[in-house]
Amino acid sequence: MIGADDRFIAVDWGTTNRRCYLIDQGRAVKTERDDTGVKALLPQDYPAQIAAIRDRLGDLPILLAGMVGSTVGWRDAPYIDAPASLAALASSLLWIDARTAIVPGVCFRDDDRPDVMRGEEVQLLGAVEAGLAPSNALLVQPGTHCKWAVMKNGAIASFRTAITGELFALLGEHSLLASQMSDPVDAGDAFSRGVMEGRRRDLAASLFVVRSSSVLGTAPLTKNCAAYVSGLLIGADVTARVAEHDARTVHVLADPRLGALYATALRAEGRIAIRIDSHGAFVAGVTKIWRLIS
Amino acid sequence: MIGADDRFIAVDWGTTNRRCYLIDQGRAVKTERDDTGVKALLPQDYPAQIAAIRDRLGDLPILLAGMVGSTVGWRDAPYIDAPASLAALASSLLWIDARTAIVPGVCFRDDDRPDVMRGEEVQLLGAVEAGLAPSNALLVQPGTHCKWAVMKNGAIASFRTAITGELFALLGEHSLLASQMSDPVDAGDAFSRGVMEGRRRDLAASLFVVRSSSVLGTAPLTKNCAAYVSGLLIGADVTARVAEHDARTVHVLADPRLGALYATALRAEGRIAIRIDSHGAFVAGVTKIWRLIS
Repeated sequence: MIGADDRFIAVDWGTTNRRCYLIDQGRAVKTERDDTGVKALLPQDYPAQIAAIRDRLGDLPILLAGMVGSTVGWRDAPYIDAPASLAALASSLLWIDARTAIVPGVCFRDDDRPDVMRGEEVQLLGAVEAGLAPSNALLVQPGTHCKWAVMKNGAIASFRTAITGELFALLGEHSLLASQMSDPVDAGDAFSRGVMEGRRRDLAASLFVVRSSSVLGTAPLTKNCAAYVSGLLIGADVTARVAEHDARTVHVLADPRLGALYATALRAEGRIAIRIDSHGAFVAGVTKIWRLIS
Repeated sequence: MIGADDRFIAVDWGTTNRRCYLIDQGRAVKTERDDTGVKALLPQDYPAQIAAIRDRLGDLPILLAGMVGSTVGWRDAPYIDAPASLAALASSLLWIDARTAIVPGVCFRDDDRPDVMRGEEVQLLGAVEAGLAPSNALLVQPGTHCKWAVMKNGAIASFRTAITGELFALLGEHSLLASQMSDPVDAGDAFSRGVMEGRRRDLAASLFVVRSSSVLGTAPLTKNCAAYVSGLLIGADVTARVAEHDARTVHVLADPRLGALYATALRAEGRIAIRIDSHGAFVAGVTKIWRLIS
Protein backbone atom coordinates (compact mmCIF):
# COMPACT_ATOMS: atom_id res chain seq x y z
CA MET A 1 0.00 0.00 0.00
CA ILE A 2 2.76 2.31 0.94
CA GLY A 3 5.65 3.85 -0.97
CA ALA A 4 9.36 3.68 -0.25
CA ASP A 5 9.09 6.78 1.91
CA ASP A 6 9.63 5.74 5.53
CA ARG A 7 7.48 8.51 6.98
CA PHE A 8 4.09 7.85 8.56
CA ILE A 9 1.80 9.14 11.29
CA ALA A 10 0.96 7.10 14.40
CA VAL A 11 -1.76 7.93 16.90
CA ASP A 12 -2.00 6.47 20.41
CA TRP A 13 -5.70 7.21 20.86
CA GLY A 14 -7.03 6.56 24.33
CA THR A 15 -10.24 7.16 26.21
CA THR A 16 -9.45 10.68 27.39
CA ASN A 17 -6.31 11.69 25.50
CA ARG A 18 -4.52 11.09 22.26
CA ARG A 19 -0.95 11.50 21.18
CA CYS A 20 -0.05 11.94 17.50
CA TYR A 21 3.46 11.24 16.22
CA LEU A 22 5.04 12.09 12.92
CA ILE A 23 7.59 9.30 12.55
CA ASP A 24 10.49 9.49 10.11
CA GLN A 25 12.89 6.56 9.82
CA GLY A 26 11.80 5.21 13.18
CA ARG A 27 12.13 8.49 15.07
CA ALA A 28 9.36 10.77 16.28
CA VAL A 29 10.16 14.07 14.64
CA LYS A 30 6.98 15.79 15.77
CA THR A 31 4.56 14.98 18.60
CA GLU A 32 1.18 16.43 19.58
CA ARG A 33 -0.87 15.63 22.63
CA ASP A 34 -4.45 16.74 23.29
CA ASP A 35 -7.59 15.69 25.12
CA THR A 36 -9.57 14.56 22.09
CA GLY A 37 -10.00 11.04 23.44
CA VAL A 38 -12.56 8.63 22.07
CA LYS A 39 -15.10 9.57 24.72
CA ALA A 40 -15.20 13.07 23.21
CA LEU A 41 -16.07 11.71 19.75
CA LEU A 42 -18.77 9.86 17.83
CA PRO A 43 -17.90 7.34 15.11
CA GLN A 44 -18.86 9.80 12.38
CA ASP A 45 -16.39 12.36 13.75
CA TYR A 46 -13.29 10.35 12.85
CA PRO A 47 -12.89 11.08 9.11
CA ALA A 48 -12.67 14.81 9.83
CA GLN A 49 -10.31 14.17 12.75
CA ILE A 50 -8.02 12.09 10.53
CA ALA A 51 -8.08 14.76 7.82
CA ALA A 52 -7.16 17.41 10.36
CA ILE A 53 -4.25 15.33 11.67
CA ARG A 54 -2.97 14.94 8.08
CA ASP A 55 -3.35 18.68 7.57
CA ARG A 56 -1.10 19.31 10.56
CA LEU A 57 1.47 16.49 10.29
CA GLY A 58 1.52 15.67 6.60
CA ASP A 59 -0.52 13.80 3.98
CA LEU A 60 0.83 10.42 5.08
CA PRO A 61 -0.36 6.92 5.98
CA ILE A 62 -1.73 6.64 9.52
CA LEU A 63 -1.62 3.81 12.04
CA LEU A 64 -4.03 4.12 14.97
CA ALA A 65 -3.78 2.24 18.26
CA GLY A 66 -5.80 2.21 21.47
CA MET A 67 -9.47 2.65 22.30
CA VAL A 68 -10.06 4.14 18.84
CA GLY A 69 -10.36 0.47 17.80
CA SER A 70 -13.00 -0.43 20.40
CA THR A 71 -16.79 -0.47 20.40
CA VAL A 72 -16.69 3.01 21.92
CA GLY A 73 -14.23 4.29 19.30
CA TRP A 74 -14.29 4.54 15.54
CA ARG A 75 -14.47 0.88 14.54
CA ASP A 76 -14.18 -2.32 16.52
CA ALA A 77 -10.88 -4.02 15.63
CA PRO A 78 -11.25 -7.60 16.94
CA TYR A 79 -8.73 -8.67 19.60
CA ILE A 80 -5.99 -11.11 18.68
CA ASP A 81 -5.17 -13.86 21.18
CA ALA A 82 -2.09 -13.98 23.40
CA PRO A 83 0.62 -15.02 22.81
CA ALA A 84 0.78 -11.97 20.53
CA SER A 85 3.72 -10.55 18.56
CA LEU A 86 4.21 -7.39 16.50
CA ALA A 87 3.98 -9.59 13.37
CA ALA A 88 0.60 -10.90 14.54
CA LEU A 89 -0.63 -7.35 15.16
CA ALA A 90 0.64 -6.26 11.72
CA SER A 91 -1.18 -9.08 9.98
CA SER A 92 -4.45 -8.34 11.80
CA LEU A 93 -4.77 -4.61 11.20
CA LEU A 94 -8.28 -3.30 10.60
CA TRP A 95 -7.99 -1.30 7.39
CA ILE A 96 -10.28 1.72 7.12
CA ASP A 97 -8.89 2.60 3.69
CA ALA A 98 -5.59 1.96 1.87
CA ARG A 99 -3.72 4.52 3.97
CA THR A 100 -5.46 4.24 7.34
CA ALA A 101 -5.42 1.23 9.66
CA ILE A 102 -6.21 0.39 13.29
CA VAL A 103 -3.95 -1.89 15.35
CA PRO A 104 -6.05 -4.53 17.17
CA GLY A 105 -5.96 -5.12 20.93
CA VAL A 106 -4.89 -8.37 22.58
CA CYS A 107 -6.95 -10.74 24.70
CA PHE A 108 -5.85 -13.43 27.13
CA ARG A 109 -8.43 -16.23 27.30
CA ASP A 110 -7.76 -17.57 30.76
CA ASP A 111 -10.69 -19.65 32.05
CA ASP A 112 -10.81 -18.00 35.45
CA ARG A 113 -9.56 -14.52 34.72
CA PRO A 114 -9.81 -13.52 31.07
CA ASP A 115 -8.20 -10.20 30.22
CA VAL A 116 -8.03 -7.59 27.47
CA MET A 117 -5.78 -4.70 26.45
CA ARG A 118 -5.96 -2.06 23.73
CA GLY A 119 -3.06 0.31 23.04
CA GLU A 120 -0.70 -1.10 25.67
CA GLU A 121 0.31 -3.97 23.34
CA VAL A 122 2.21 -1.59 21.03
CA GLN A 123 4.21 -0.18 23.95
CA LEU A 124 4.93 -3.59 25.48
CA LEU A 125 6.10 -5.19 22.26
CA GLY A 126 7.89 -2.00 21.25
CA ALA A 127 9.87 -2.01 24.50
CA VAL A 128 11.32 -5.39 23.55
CA GLU A 129 11.71 -4.38 19.89
CA ALA A 130 13.72 -1.32 20.93
CA GLY A 131 15.92 -3.36 23.27
CA LEU A 132 14.57 -1.47 26.28
CA ALA A 133 13.47 -4.78 27.84
CA PRO A 134 14.66 -8.35 27.20
CA SER A 135 12.49 -10.73 25.18
CA ASN A 136 11.65 -12.72 28.32
CA ALA A 137 10.57 -10.30 31.02
CA LEU A 138 7.81 -9.05 33.33
CA LEU A 139 6.64 -5.57 32.36
CA VAL A 140 4.22 -3.27 34.13
CA GLN A 141 2.33 -0.28 32.76
CA PRO A 142 0.87 1.63 35.72
CA GLY A 143 -2.26 3.69 35.17
CA THR A 144 -6.02 3.75 35.62
CA HIS A 145 -6.04 0.10 34.59
CA CYS A 146 -2.55 -1.15 35.36
CA LYS A 147 -1.27 -3.86 33.00
CA TRP A 148 1.23 -6.54 34.01
CA ALA A 149 2.54 -8.48 31.04
CA VAL A 150 4.70 -11.57 30.83
CA MET A 151 6.85 -11.42 27.68
CA LYS A 152 8.15 -14.69 26.27
CA ASN A 153 10.37 -14.83 23.18
CA GLY A 154 9.45 -11.24 22.47
CA ALA A 155 5.69 -11.87 22.46
CA ILE A 156 3.00 -11.01 25.02
CA ALA A 157 2.46 -14.46 26.57
CA SER A 158 -0.06 -13.52 29.27
CA PHE A 159 -1.15 -10.47 31.20
CA ARG A 160 -3.21 -9.25 34.11
CA THR A 161 -5.04 -5.94 34.56
CA ALA A 162 -5.57 -4.36 37.99
CA ILE A 163 -7.84 -1.32 38.32
CA THR A 164 -5.44 0.22 40.82
CA GLY A 165 -5.55 3.75 39.41
CA GLU A 166 -9.33 3.71 39.08
CA LEU A 167 -9.73 2.65 42.73
CA PHE A 168 -7.46 5.51 43.79
CA ALA A 169 -9.56 7.99 41.80
CA LEU A 170 -12.84 6.60 43.18
CA LEU A 171 -11.60 6.87 46.76
CA GLY A 172 -10.18 10.36 46.22
CA GLU A 173 -13.32 11.70 44.58
CA HIS A 174 -16.28 9.90 46.09
CA SER A 175 -15.42 8.02 49.28
CA LEU A 176 -15.73 9.04 52.91
CA LEU A 177 -11.93 9.41 52.84
CA ALA A 178 -11.99 11.93 49.97
CA SER A 179 -11.74 15.02 52.19
CA GLN A 180 -8.52 13.63 53.70
CA MET A 181 -6.91 12.91 50.33
CA SER A 182 -5.86 16.35 49.07
CA ASP A 183 -2.11 15.95 49.57
CA PRO A 184 0.20 15.48 46.57
CA VAL A 185 1.38 11.89 46.16
CA ASP A 186 5.09 11.20 46.17
CA ALA A 187 7.24 8.23 47.11
CA GLY A 188 7.89 9.48 50.66
CA ASP A 189 7.27 8.04 54.12
CA ALA A 190 3.46 7.98 53.95
CA PHE A 191 3.57 6.20 50.60
CA SER A 192 6.02 3.61 51.94
CA ARG A 193 3.89 3.07 55.02
CA GLY A 194 0.94 2.44 52.70
CA VAL A 195 3.00 -0.03 50.68
CA MET A 196 3.82 -2.02 53.82
CA GLU A 197 0.16 -2.06 54.83
CA GLY A 198 -0.84 -3.00 51.28
CA ARG A 199 1.25 -6.16 51.53
CA ARG A 200 -1.44 -7.52 53.86
CA ARG A 201 -3.74 -7.68 50.81
CA ASP A 202 -6.66 -6.50 52.96
CA LEU A 203 -7.73 -3.28 51.25
CA ALA A 204 -11.18 -2.83 52.76
CA ALA A 205 -9.77 -2.95 56.29
CA SER A 206 -6.56 -1.06 55.57
CA LEU A 207 -8.53 1.83 54.06
CA PHE A 208 -10.49 2.36 57.26
CA VAL A 209 -7.21 2.98 59.10
CA VAL A 210 -7.10 6.33 57.31
CA ARG A 211 -10.36 7.31 58.93
CA SER A 212 -9.75 5.87 62.38
CA SER A 213 -6.29 7.46 62.56
CA SER A 214 -7.82 10.80 61.72
CA VAL A 215 -10.65 10.43 64.24
CA LEU A 216 -8.23 9.39 66.99
CA GLY A 217 -5.53 11.88 65.93
CA THR A 218 -2.99 9.06 65.70
CA ALA A 219 0.19 10.02 63.82
CA PRO A 220 1.27 9.78 61.08
CA LEU A 221 -1.96 9.13 59.24
CA THR A 222 -3.53 12.44 60.17
CA LYS A 223 -1.71 13.84 57.13
CA ASN A 224 -0.45 12.64 53.73
CA CYS A 225 -3.45 10.35 53.42
CA ALA A 226 -3.54 10.38 49.61
CA ALA A 227 0.08 9.22 49.55
CA TYR A 228 -0.75 6.48 52.05
CA VAL A 229 -3.79 5.31 50.04
CA SER A 230 -1.71 5.34 46.85
CA GLY A 231 0.94 3.23 48.60
CA LEU A 232 -1.72 0.89 49.92
CA LEU A 233 -3.24 0.26 46.48
CA ILE A 234 0.07 0.03 44.61
CA GLY A 235 1.56 -2.12 47.37
CA ALA A 236 -1.37 -4.55 47.20
CA ASP A 237 -1.11 -4.65 43.38
CA VAL A 238 2.64 -5.29 43.44
CA THR A 239 2.43 -7.89 46.22
CA ALA A 240 -0.27 -9.87 44.46
CA ARG A 241 1.60 -9.79 41.15
CA VAL A 242 5.04 -10.75 42.39
CA ALA A 243 3.38 -13.69 44.19
CA GLU A 244 2.38 -14.91 40.71
CA HIS A 245 5.79 -14.40 39.09
CA ASP A 246 9.34 -15.21 40.10
CA ALA A 247 10.87 -12.42 38.01
CA ARG A 248 13.71 -10.78 39.91
CA THR A 249 13.52 -7.72 37.67
CA VAL A 250 10.43 -5.81 36.58
CA HIS A 251 10.46 -3.27 33.75
CA VAL A 252 8.23 -0.26 34.41
CA LEU A 253 6.70 1.66 31.48
CA ALA A 254 5.40 4.90 32.94
CA ASP A 255 5.81 8.63 33.31
CA PRO A 256 8.43 9.61 35.92
CA ARG A 257 5.96 10.23 38.75
CA LEU A 258 4.02 6.97 38.53
CA GLY A 259 7.18 5.09 37.59
CA ALA A 260 8.83 6.23 40.84
CA LEU A 261 5.85 5.01 42.87
CA TYR A 262 5.84 1.53 41.33
CA ALA A 263 9.64 1.30 41.54
CA THR A 264 9.45 2.07 45.27
CA ALA A 265 6.79 -0.61 45.85
CA LEU A 266 8.74 -3.15 43.78
CA ARG A 267 11.92 -2.51 45.76
CA ALA A 268 9.94 -3.05 48.97
CA GLU A 269 9.22 -6.53 47.60
CA GLY A 270 12.92 -7.11 46.92
CA ARG A 271 12.59 -6.72 43.15
CA ILE A 272 14.73 -4.67 40.82
CA ALA A 273 12.69 -2.02 39.00
CA ILE A 274 13.98 -0.79 35.64
CA ARG A 275 12.13 2.23 34.31
CA ILE A 276 11.84 2.59 30.58
CA ASP A 277 10.48 5.30 28.31
CA SER A 278 6.91 4.42 27.31
CA HIS A 279 6.77 6.90 24.41
CA GLY A 280 9.99 5.53 22.96
CA ALA A 281 8.55 2.04 23.31
CA PHE A 282 5.37 3.05 21.48
CA VAL A 283 7.33 4.62 18.61
CA ALA A 284 9.53 1.51 18.30
CA GLY A 285 6.51 -0.81 18.28
CA VAL A 286 4.41 1.11 15.81
CA THR A 287 7.43 1.63 13.53
CA LYS A 288 8.01 -2.14 13.44
CA ILE A 289 4.35 -2.69 12.50
CA TRP A 290 4.71 -0.03 9.82
CA ARG A 291 7.79 -1.70 8.37
CA LEU A 292 6.15 -5.13 8.39
CA ILE A 293 3.35 -3.84 6.17
CA SER A 294 5.39 -1.51 3.97
CA MET B 1 -31.91 10.76 87.82
CA ILE B 2 -34.67 8.40 86.85
CA GLY B 3 -37.74 7.11 88.66
CA ALA B 4 -38.81 3.56 89.34
CA ASP B 5 -40.65 3.47 86.05
CA ASP B 6 -38.77 1.08 83.71
CA ARG B 7 -39.80 2.89 80.56
CA PHE B 8 -37.37 4.91 78.46
CA ILE B 9 -36.66 5.91 74.86
CA ALA B 10 -33.58 4.72 72.98
CA VAL B 11 -32.41 6.10 69.64
CA ASP B 12 -29.93 4.35 67.35
CA TRP B 13 -28.95 7.51 65.45
CA GLY B 14 -26.73 6.87 62.47
CA THR B 15 -25.34 8.89 59.59
CA THR B 16 -28.28 8.46 57.24
CA ASN B 17 -31.04 6.87 59.34
CA ARG B 18 -32.27 6.71 62.87
CA ARG B 19 -34.42 4.24 64.74
CA CYS B 20 -36.34 5.24 67.83
CA TYR B 21 -37.54 2.66 70.37
CA LEU B 22 -40.00 3.04 73.21
CA ILE B 23 -38.73 0.39 75.63
CA ASP B 24 -40.84 -0.90 78.48
CA GLN B 25 -39.36 -3.50 80.85
CA GLY B 26 -36.69 -4.43 78.36
CA ARG B 27 -39.03 -4.83 75.40
CA ALA B 28 -39.47 -2.51 72.43
CA VAL B 29 -43.18 -1.69 72.54
CA LYS B 30 -43.00 0.90 69.76
CA THR B 31 -40.43 1.49 67.01
CA GLU B 32 -40.02 4.25 64.43
CA ARG B 33 -37.50 4.41 61.63
CA ASP B 34 -36.83 7.43 59.41
CA ASP B 35 -34.07 9.04 57.38
CA THR B 36 -33.30 11.89 59.76
CA GLY B 37 -29.66 10.84 60.14
CA VAL B 38 -27.01 13.14 61.56
CA LYS B 39 -25.96 14.29 58.13
CA ALA B 40 -29.40 15.87 57.72
CA LEU B 41 -29.01 17.91 60.92
CA LEU B 42 -26.95 20.69 62.48
CA PRO B 43 -26.02 20.63 66.18
CA GLN B 44 -28.62 23.25 66.99
CA ASP B 45 -31.38 21.11 65.48
CA TYR B 46 -31.18 18.39 68.13
CA PRO B 47 -33.18 19.95 71.03
CA ALA B 48 -36.23 20.26 68.77
CA GLN B 49 -35.69 16.75 67.43
CA ILE B 50 -35.53 15.33 70.95
CA ALA B 51 -38.67 17.25 71.95
CA ALA B 52 -40.49 15.89 68.91
CA ILE B 53 -39.44 12.32 69.75
CA ARG B 54 -40.77 12.78 73.30
CA ASP B 55 -44.01 14.19 71.87
CA ARG B 56 -44.49 11.03 69.85
CA LEU B 57 -43.17 8.33 72.19
CA GLY B 58 -43.70 9.82 75.66
CA ASP B 59 -42.13 12.34 78.02
CA LEU B 60 -39.40 9.91 79.09
CA PRO B 61 -35.64 9.72 79.59
CA ILE B 62 -33.71 9.19 76.36
CA LEU B 63 -30.51 7.29 75.63
CA LEU B 64 -28.86 8.08 72.27
CA ALA B 65 -26.29 5.91 70.50
CA GLY B 66 -24.41 6.17 67.23
CA MET B 67 -23.07 9.02 65.15
CA VAL B 68 -25.21 11.48 67.12
CA GLY B 69 -22.29 11.38 69.60
CA SER B 70 -19.64 12.24 67.01
CA THR B 71 -18.07 15.46 65.81
CA VAL B 72 -20.59 15.48 62.97
CA GLY B 73 -23.54 14.85 65.33
CA TRP B 74 -24.93 16.71 68.31
CA ARG B 75 -22.05 16.49 70.76
CA ASP B 76 -18.78 14.59 70.70
CA ALA B 77 -18.93 11.80 73.29
CA PRO B 78 -15.30 10.68 73.76
CA TYR B 79 -14.53 7.06 72.87
CA ILE B 80 -13.83 4.58 75.61
CA ASP B 81 -11.00 2.11 75.07
CA ALA B 82 -11.41 -1.56 74.26
CA PRO B 83 -11.77 -3.86 76.11
CA ALA B 84 -15.18 -2.26 76.66
CA SER B 85 -18.21 -3.56 78.59
CA LEU B 86 -21.78 -2.31 79.00
CA ALA B 87 -20.82 -1.17 82.50
CA ALA B 88 -17.96 0.89 81.07
CA LEU B 89 -20.32 2.47 78.53
CA ALA B 90 -22.88 3.22 81.26
CA SER B 91 -20.29 4.94 83.43
CA SER B 92 -19.03 7.06 80.53
CA LEU B 93 -22.30 8.47 79.19
CA LEU B 94 -22.22 12.04 77.95
CA TRP B 95 -25.09 13.75 79.77
CA ILE B 96 -26.85 16.50 77.87
CA ASP B 97 -29.27 17.09 80.71
CA ALA B 98 -30.63 14.96 83.56
CA ARG B 99 -32.91 12.98 81.25
CA THR B 100 -30.87 12.85 78.05
CA ALA B 101 -27.54 11.05 77.54
CA ILE B 102 -25.33 9.87 74.68
CA VAL B 103 -23.63 6.47 74.77
CA PRO B 104 -19.92 6.82 73.80
CA GLY B 105 -18.26 4.89 71.01
CA VAL B 106 -15.37 2.46 71.47
CA CYS B 107 -11.83 2.74 70.14
CA PHE B 108 -9.18 0.09 69.72
CA ARG B 109 -5.69 1.58 70.04
CA ASP B 110 -3.70 -0.87 68.00
CA ASP B 111 -0.34 0.59 66.95
CA ASP B 112 -0.62 -0.49 63.34
CA ARG B 113 -4.33 -0.44 62.76
CA PRO B 114 -6.27 1.67 65.25
CA ASP B 115 -10.03 1.41 64.94
CA VAL B 116 -13.22 3.12 66.07
CA MET B 117 -16.93 2.32 66.30
CA ARG B 118 -19.99 4.30 67.28
CA GLY B 119 -23.39 2.67 67.70
CA GLU B 120 -22.28 -0.88 66.94
CA GLU B 121 -20.95 -1.35 70.51
CA VAL B 122 -24.50 -1.37 71.93
CA GLN B 123 -25.57 -4.12 69.51
CA LEU B 124 -22.43 -6.20 70.04
CA LEU B 125 -22.56 -6.10 73.83
CA GLY B 126 -26.34 -6.44 73.75
CA ALA B 127 -26.08 -9.65 71.73
CA VAL B 128 -24.05 -11.22 74.53
CA GLU B 129 -26.26 -9.65 77.23
CA ALA B 130 -29.36 -11.15 75.59
CA GLY B 131 -27.74 -14.57 75.31
CA LEU B 132 -27.85 -14.38 71.50
CA ALA B 133 -24.04 -14.91 71.37
CA PRO B 134 -21.66 -16.43 73.93
CA SER B 135 -19.43 -14.18 76.01
CA ASN B 136 -16.36 -15.34 74.04
CA ALA B 137 -17.15 -15.10 70.34
CA LEU B 138 -16.38 -13.52 66.98
CA LEU B 139 -19.21 -11.27 65.81
CA VAL B 140 -19.66 -9.49 62.50
CA GLN B 141 -21.92 -6.55 61.65
CA PRO B 142 -22.02 -6.21 57.86
CA GLY B 143 -22.75 -2.81 56.37
CA THR B 144 -21.17 0.25 54.79
CA HIS B 145 -18.35 -0.11 57.30
CA CYS B 146 -18.40 -3.75 58.34
CA LYS B 147 -17.34 -4.36 61.94
CA TRP B 148 -15.71 -7.59 63.13
CA ALA B 149 -15.50 -7.81 66.92
CA VAL B 150 -13.78 -10.27 69.20
CA MET B 151 -15.77 -10.62 72.43
CA LYS B 152 -13.95 -11.85 75.53
CA ASN B 153 -15.71 -12.38 78.87
CA GLY B 154 -18.66 -10.44 77.51
CA ALA B 155 -16.61 -7.34 76.59
CA ILE B 156 -15.44 -6.02 73.22
CA ALA B 157 -11.76 -7.05 73.34
CA SER B 158 -10.71 -5.90 69.86
CA PHE B 159 -12.29 -5.15 66.51
CA ARG B 160 -11.59 -4.44 62.88
CA THR B 161 -13.55 -2.31 60.40
CA ALA B 162 -13.61 -3.07 56.66
CA ILE B 163 -15.22 -0.58 54.26
CA THR B 164 -16.70 -3.43 52.26
CA GLY B 165 -20.14 -1.89 51.79
CA GLU B 166 -18.71 1.49 50.87
CA LEU B 167 -16.48 -0.06 48.20
CA PHE B 168 -19.51 -1.85 46.74
CA ALA B 169 -21.45 1.42 46.60
CA LEU B 170 -18.51 3.31 45.02
CA LEU B 171 -18.09 0.67 42.33
CA GLY B 172 -21.82 0.47 41.64
CA GLU B 173 -22.28 4.23 41.39
CA HIS B 174 -19.07 5.68 40.00
CA SER B 175 -16.76 3.05 38.49
CA LEU B 176 -16.36 1.89 34.91
CA LEU B 177 -18.20 -1.26 36.02
CA ALA B 178 -21.26 0.67 37.23
CA SER B 179 -23.30 0.15 34.06
CA GLN B 180 -22.90 -3.62 34.46
CA MET B 181 -23.99 -3.64 38.12
CA SER B 182 -27.76 -3.18 37.92
CA ASP B 183 -28.75 -6.73 38.89
CA PRO B 184 -30.22 -7.46 42.33
CA VAL B 185 -27.72 -9.11 44.67
CA ASP B 186 -28.60 -12.46 46.18
CA ALA B 187 -26.58 -15.41 47.44
CA GLY B 188 -26.79 -17.30 44.14
CA ASP B 189 -24.20 -18.66 41.73
CA ALA B 190 -22.69 -15.33 40.67
CA PHE B 191 -22.29 -14.30 44.30
CA SER B 192 -20.60 -17.59 45.16
CA ARG B 193 -18.29 -17.29 42.17
CA GLY B 194 -17.34 -13.84 43.42
CA VAL B 195 -16.67 -15.24 46.89
CA MET B 196 -14.29 -17.83 45.46
CA GLU B 197 -12.47 -15.16 43.45
CA GLY B 198 -12.41 -12.90 46.54
CA ARG B 199 -10.44 -15.53 48.42
CA ARG B 200 -7.44 -14.57 46.25
CA ARG B 201 -7.38 -11.22 48.12
CA ASP B 202 -6.55 -9.44 44.87
CA LEU B 203 -9.45 -7.00 44.47
CA ALA B 204 -7.98 -4.62 41.89
CA ALA B 205 -7.31 -7.49 39.47
CA SER B 206 -10.45 -9.48 40.25
CA LEU B 207 -12.63 -6.45 39.55
CA PHE B 208 -11.29 -6.10 36.01
CA VAL B 209 -12.51 -9.61 35.26
CA VAL B 210 -16.03 -8.14 35.26
CA ARG B 211 -15.07 -5.85 32.41
CA SER B 212 -12.96 -8.27 30.40
CA SER B 213 -15.64 -10.97 30.63
CA SER B 214 -18.18 -8.52 29.31
CA VAL B 215 -15.93 -7.32 26.48
CA LEU B 216 -15.12 -10.89 25.46
CA GLY B 217 -18.67 -12.17 26.07
CA THR B 218 -17.33 -14.87 28.36
CA ALA B 219 -20.02 -16.53 30.49
CA PRO B 220 -21.14 -16.26 33.21
CA LEU B 221 -19.87 -12.80 34.03
CA THR B 222 -21.78 -11.11 31.26
CA LYS B 223 -24.70 -10.98 33.71
CA ASN B 224 -25.23 -10.79 37.49
CA CYS B 225 -22.16 -8.60 37.82
CA ALA B 226 -23.39 -6.78 40.93
CA ALA B 227 -23.84 -10.13 42.67
CA TYR B 228 -20.35 -11.17 41.58
CA VAL B 229 -18.78 -7.92 42.81
CA SER B 230 -20.65 -8.24 46.11
CA GLY B 231 -19.34 -11.78 46.47
CA LEU B 232 -15.84 -10.64 45.59
CA LEU B 233 -15.80 -7.91 48.24
CA ILE B 234 -17.51 -9.94 50.96
CA GLY B 235 -15.36 -12.98 50.14
CA ALA B 236 -12.17 -10.91 50.45
CA ASP B 237 -13.39 -9.42 53.74
CA VAL B 238 -14.33 -12.83 55.19
CA THR B 239 -11.11 -14.50 54.01
CA ALA B 240 -8.91 -11.80 55.52
CA ARG B 241 -10.78 -11.90 58.80
CA VAL B 242 -10.92 -15.64 59.32
CA ALA B 243 -7.16 -15.70 58.64
CA GLU B 244 -6.82 -13.53 61.76
CA HIS B 245 -9.12 -15.62 63.96
CA ASP B 246 -9.51 -19.30 64.67
CA ALA B 247 -13.19 -19.05 65.60
CA ARG B 248 -15.12 -21.99 64.18
CA THR B 249 -18.39 -20.11 64.59
CA VAL B 250 -19.15 -16.52 63.62
CA HIS B 251 -22.25 -14.68 64.81
CA VAL B 252 -23.75 -12.38 62.17
CA LEU B 253 -25.71 -9.29 63.24
CA ALA B 254 -27.53 -8.11 60.12
CA ASP B 255 -30.76 -7.79 58.26
CA PRO B 256 -31.84 -11.00 56.49
CA ARG B 257 -30.48 -10.04 53.07
CA LEU B 258 -26.97 -9.00 54.11
CA GLY B 259 -26.92 -11.72 56.75
CA ALA B 260 -27.51 -14.36 54.06
CA LEU B 261 -24.61 -13.01 51.99
CA TYR B 262 -22.11 -13.07 54.85
CA ALA B 263 -23.36 -16.48 56.00
CA THR B 264 -22.76 -17.84 52.49
CA ALA B 265 -19.22 -16.45 52.39
CA LEU B 266 -18.45 -17.74 55.89
CA ARG B 267 -19.65 -21.23 54.97
CA ALA B 268 -17.37 -21.12 51.90
CA GLU B 269 -14.51 -20.68 54.42
CA GLY B 270 -15.69 -23.65 56.43
CA ARG B 271 -17.12 -21.59 59.26
CA ILE B 272 -20.49 -21.91 60.96
CA ALA B 273 -22.54 -18.71 60.61
CA ILE B 274 -25.19 -18.02 63.24
CA ARG B 275 -27.46 -15.13 62.37
CA ILE B 276 -28.85 -13.08 65.22
CA ASP B 277 -31.38 -10.25 65.41
CA SER B 278 -29.52 -6.93 65.49
CA HIS B 279 -32.53 -4.92 66.69
CA GLY B 280 -33.10 -7.35 69.56
CA ALA B 281 -29.41 -7.05 70.40
CA PHE B 282 -29.60 -3.25 70.43
CA VAL B 283 -32.66 -3.25 72.71
CA ALA B 284 -30.97 -5.69 75.12
CA GLY B 285 -27.77 -3.62 75.19
CA VAL B 286 -29.38 -0.25 75.69
CA THR B 287 -31.76 -1.65 78.31
CA LYS B 288 -28.80 -2.97 80.31
CA ILE B 289 -27.18 0.47 80.18
CA TRP B 290 -30.46 2.01 81.27
CA ARG B 291 -30.74 -0.32 84.24
CA LEU B 292 -27.14 0.28 85.27
CA ILE B 293 -27.83 4.01 85.60
CA SER B 294 -31.37 3.81 87.00
